[in-house]
Amino acid sequence: MAAERDPEGRAAAQPLLTDLYQATMALGYWRAGRARVHAEFELFFRRCPFGGAFTLAAGLRDCVRFLRAFRLRDADVQFLASVLPPDTDPSFFEHLRALDCSGVTVRALPEGSLAFPGVPLLQVSGPLLVVQLLETPLLCLVSYASLVATNAARLRLIAGPEKRLLEMGLRRAQGPDGGLTASTYSYLGGFDSSSNVLAGQLRGVPVAGTLAHSFVTSFSGSEVPPDPILAPAAGEGPGVDLAASVKEWLERVCAHLGLGVQEPHPGERAAFVAYALAFPQAFQGLLDSYSVWRSGLPNFLAVALALGELGYRPVGVRLDSGDLLQLAQEVRGVFRATAAHFQVPWLESVSIAVSNNIDEEELVRLAQEGSEVNVIGIGTSVVTCPQQPSLGCVYKLVSVGGQPRMKLTEDPEKQTLPGSKAAFRLLGYDGSLLLDVLQLAEEPPPQAGQELRVWPRGAQEPRTVRPAQVEPLLQLWIHQGQLCEPLPSLAESRAFAQLSLSRLSPEHKRLRSPALYQVALSEKLRDLVDRLHRGGLL
Amino acid sequence: MAAERDPEGRAAAQPLLTDLYQATMALGYWRAGRARVHAEFELFFRRCPFGGAFTLAAGLRDCVRFLRAFRLRDADVQFLASVLPPDTDPSFFEHLRALDCSGVTVRALPEGSLAFPGVPLLQVSGPLLVVQLLETPLLCLVSYASLVATNAARLRLIAGPEKRLLEMGLRRAQGPDGGLTASTYSYLGGFDSSSNVLAGQLRGVPVAGTLAHSFVTSFSGSEVPPDPILAPAAGEGPGVDLAASVKEWLERVCAHLGLGVQEPHPGERAAFVAYALAFPQAFQGLLDSYSVWRSGLPNFLAVALALGELGYRPVGVRLDSGDLLQLAQEVRGVFRATAAHFQVPWLESVSIAVSNNIDEEELVRLAQEGSEVNVIGIGTSVVTCPQQPSLGCVYKLVSVGGQPRMKLTEDPEKQTLPGSKAAFRLLGYDGSLLLDVLQLAEEPPPQAGQELRVWPRGAQEPRTVRPAQVEPLLQLWIHQGQLCEPLPSLAESRAFAQLSLSRLSPEHKRLRSPALYQVALSEKLRDLVDRLHRGGLL
Repeated sequence: MAAERDPEGRAAAQPLLTDLYQATMALGYWRAGRARVHAEFELFFRRCPFGGAFTLAAGLRDCVRFLRAFRLRDADVQFLASVLPPDTDPSFFEHLRALDCSGVTVRALPEGSLAFPGVPLLQVSGPLLVVQLLETPLLCLVSYASLVATNAARLRLIAGPEKRLLEMGLRRAQGPDGGLTASTYSYLGGFDSSSNVLAGQLRGVPVAGTLAHSFVTSFSGSEVPPDPILAPAAGEGPGVDLAASVKEWLERVCAHLGLGVQEPHPGERAAFVAYALAFPQAFQGLLDSYSVWRSGLPNFLAVALALGELGYRPVGVRLDSGDLLQLAQEVRGVFRATAAHFQVPWLESVSIAVSNNIDEEELVRLAQEGSEVNVIGIGTSVVTCPQQPSLGCVYKLVSVGGQPRMKLTEDPEKQTLPGSKAAFRLLGYDGSLLLDVLQLAEEPPPQAGQELRVWPRGAQEPRTVRPAQVEPLLQLWIHQGQLCEPLPSLAESRAFAQLSLSRLSPEHKRLRSPALYQVALSEKLRDLVDRLHRGGLL
Repeated sequence: MAAERDPEGRAAAQPLLTDLYQATMALGYWRAGRARVHAEFELFFRRCPFGGAFTLAAGLRDCVRFLRAFRLRDADVQFLASVLPPDTDPSFFEHLRALDCSGVTVRALPEGSLAFPGVPLLQVSGPLLVVQLLETPLLCLVSYASLVATNAARLRLIAGPEKRLLEMGLRRAQGPDGGLTASTYSYLGGFDSSSNVLAGQLRGVPVAGTLAHSFVTSFSGSEVPPDPILAPAAGEGPGVDLAASVKEWLERVCAHLGLGVQEPHPGERAAFVAYALAFPQAFQGLLDSYSVWRSGLPNFLAVALALGELGYRPVGVRLDSGDLLQLAQEVRGVFRATAAHFQVPWLESVSIAVSNNIDEEELVRLAQEGSEVNVIGIGTSVVTCPQQPSLGCVYKLVSVGGQPRMKLTEDPEKQTLPGSKAAFRLLGYDGSLLLDVLQLAEEPPPQAGQELRVWPRGAQEPRTVRPAQVEPLLQLWIHQGQLCEPLPSLAESRAFAQLSLSRLSPEHKRLRSPALYQVALSEKLRDLVDRLHRGGLL
C-alpha cells in the first residue's frame, strides 16, 4: 500500500461548518463571562447501528486534522457578525479572531477500536466557548466515519477473509467528501481497495478499476488501432499484431464453444484488444455489454489466449448484471473446459469479479461455500449505509468548572451520564471481552484478578466480575492543543480493527439478533447519577 | 436572503475525485487513438426516489463550478502515473497535463425542474477521453443534490406552505461536504433555512439557530452575570437588571401556574437570562433540559415577560423530546392563559419550534389542521434520505463519432436509449403537464396544437397527443467550455422548484402510490432502438 501522502492536502472541514446555534451560544457564554470556564464534552452513540452489537470507532484522524487547523479567518468572523445582532460588542469578535484549539485536550478510542453504546468515542475538554463550537464538526467527522467503517466490517464478516472487497460507491456518495470519507473508512473497516482515486492520492487507500460498459460500447469494430503490435511479456523476441492474433484465437474459441465466429460483437472485441494493448499485464474483460455467452465470454477468451501466448496472464473478468453467482459458476466451468481444451492451466483460475447493487443479502449468496466469485465490488450498500444511514452520535456536556453536569430530560433515553470519566475494557481468563466499565476519572482503575462490583446499564442489580486483564480505552491524543503521539497509519488502524473484531465473541459479532455487549457503571458513577436524580434538578 | 457569496470559495470537487477505471479507460482510449473522438453521454435516473413520481433536478451549479475549474495538477498526474503501468508512454501523461474542459458542451435541465425517469438531467459532449473522465464526479455532484432536493420538496408538500422548515442535519450528514450539499439543496427543494453556517457563508442559505441543552445545563444558577443590565428595546429610559426582573416575574408566573417558586431550575433560568442578555431581540427558550412543566416553561415565561416589559418580543420556545404535537398544543394553551392573565396579548402567538428525529410520518402529524407548531427542525430525515439514500443516477454513452451507441445487455432495465437526443415537455389546454417526449436531436420539435404520435416507455401501443404548449427541457449551459449564461441564484432555483411543482397534477404529486408520469419516445427514436435491437449486436 502506498503511504498516506499529503495528509493535509485535503481541505479539512472548515470552522464555519457548524450549526449557527454554536455561534449564538458562544455569544451567550461570552456575554455571561463564561467563555473560558473549563468544560468537558463526551461524544458517544446510544445504539449500535444496523441492529448489530458492535461499532468500529473511526474518524479521529479527521478530527485531529480539523482541530489542529482550527482558526476563524477574517471572512468567517465577518460572516458571523452579519448574522448576529448588529449591536454585538465588537470585543466578542476579537475573541473569535484569536480563537484556536491551544486550550483543548482530546482523549479518544483509537481508530479501529470496538465501541459500545454510551462509551465515549471522544472526550473533549477546554474553554467552554471553543469546545462548544467544536460540537457539530466533530459529530460530522466521527459519526459517518464510524458508521461506514462498521458497515464495511459487517460486509467483511459476511464475505470471509478470502474474497477481495472493492468499494466503488463514489458516485452514490452523499456529496464529494462523503465519497472520500466512505472510501477511507470502508478500507479501515476491512475492504481491500477502492475505486476512488482521490482516496488513493490523499489517504493511501489501494485503488482498483479497469473498464466500464461505455469503453466497450464506444468501439464499433471498424476502428484501426494505430499500433496493434505487442511485445512478449518477457521482453524478448519479436512483437505480435495482437488484433490479428485475437482474430485467429477467436476462430478456435468459437469452434470450441460451438458458436458462429460472427456472433461475438466486433466492437466489444476491438475494445478488449485496445484495453489489452494498454494493459497487457492487467487485462480484465467486462462481459455483459451485449451478451455474456454469445459475445463477452468468447471475445474475452480470444484476447486472453492471445495474451497468454505472449506470456501475459490476464486478470480475469467482471460480471455486472444477471444472477451473479450462477453466472460465475458457469463462467468458471467454461474457463476450466477451455483451459483443458487448449492446455492453458492458468486460465482455470483467473479472477471472476462481480458487481451490481450487492447488499448484505446478496453478499451472503456470493460468499457461500463453493462460490467461484473472487472479487466483489460494492457501491451503494457500503457507502450510503441504506440499512441505517446515520449513527446518531451525540456530544454532551458532562462537566463545567469541575462540577458534573447531566441532562435530566423526561425522556430517559436522552439522559446523560455526568462527570469526567474513564473507561476500561475487562477481559476474561480466556481472552474474551467481558464488559466495558465507565467510572469517574478520579477513581482508581479496576485491577486484574480483583473482584469488582459494577452496574450494567439498564439492569436493576449489580454484577460482580473478576477480570484477567484490564485495558484502558481512552487514549490521550491532544493535550492543550499539542498532538501527543502520531496517529497510526490508515493501514495500521485497519489491521487493528480486524484484531479488535477477532477478540469479540461470535454471539456479539452475529449480524442479526446478536447478544448485546454489556457496558456497566462503577458504583461511584452510579451513586452520582442517583444523587443528581434524587436531587431532582441537580 | 443574503446573496450567493464567494461561490468559488468552496473547494470544488477535485479532478481525481473519480473512479480509477475512468483513468484506465482514458489510457485505453488514448492508446487506441480515440482520445479526441467526439462522444456524448447522458446522465439520468431510472426511477423516481422514495416511491414517488417526481424528482427535482439539482446539482448543476456544482457541476458547472467543477467543469470550469477542471485541470489535473502535476501532483494528480504523478499520482496517476504511480498507479498505471510503469511502461506507459509518457506522452499520455502530457496529454493529461494539458487536459481541460474547453472542448466540452453541457445541456441540462435547469435546477429546480421536474425530472422524470430516462430524461437526461445532463447531456455532456466532447472529446471521448475527457467526457469519460467526468463521469464519476458529475454523478456524485448531481445524484445526491437531486435526491436531497426531492426529499426536501416532499417534506414541504407534507408541511404545507405555512410551517417554517429548518434543515439541521449537518451532524448527521455523510461527511462535511455531504452537509454542505444537503443544506444547499434542501433549501432549493423548499426548506426555509439551515443551521449550517457554512451554507450561509458560501451559498447564501438563510441560517437559523439559538441554543442547545448544553448551554442550559452549563449554568448552575450560582453564576453572577458580569453585566445584567438591559436597556429598553426603544433605547430610551434607564436599563433594568434583567436577572432581578426575571426573579420577580418568576414569582408571579409560579403563582399563576400553581408551582412552587423553588421548582424551576435556577441554572436553566440563569442560562435563559444569559441568552436573553445576548439576544434580547431574539430570545428563544429550549424547554426540555429538565422538566417542561415544572421548569422550562415557567423559566421561559419569567424571562419572556421581563423582556416584554422592556419592549422586547421573544421569538418563542423549542421542544426537543416527548410527544411534540401534544406538548405544542398544551404549551400554546399555557401561553394563551398566561397572556390573558398578565394582559400581554403578544405572548399568545410566540413561535413554537419542535425537533427530534422528525420523519415524513411525524411531519404529517405535526402539520395537521389545528397544530400549534410553527417551526419544524428536521435533521437526519432530510439529510440522509433514509427512505432511499441514493438516487442511482447513471451516465451512459449515447453516441461516438456521430454514431448512436446503446448498451444491449440481457437485463432490459439496464438497456440505454441510443443517439443524441432532445427532450420536450408537452402541456395540455388546462396548463397541466401531459408527458415528456424524447426524440432524436435532428428531429423537428413537436408543434403546439398539432397531433403527435409517441410511444410511452414500457407501453406496447403508441399514443396520440395534441399539446397546447411545448417546452424544450434541455438548456445549453456550457458550449465548448464557455458558460453561455449565468446560472440562476439559489433562491431563484428554489422559487422555480416551487413553480414547477405547482404545475404537476395532484395524482403525480401524491407521496404514496402516485400515478406515474409518462415519458415517451418519438417514432424515430423508437425506430432506432428497434433497429439496433433487431440488428442484435449493433
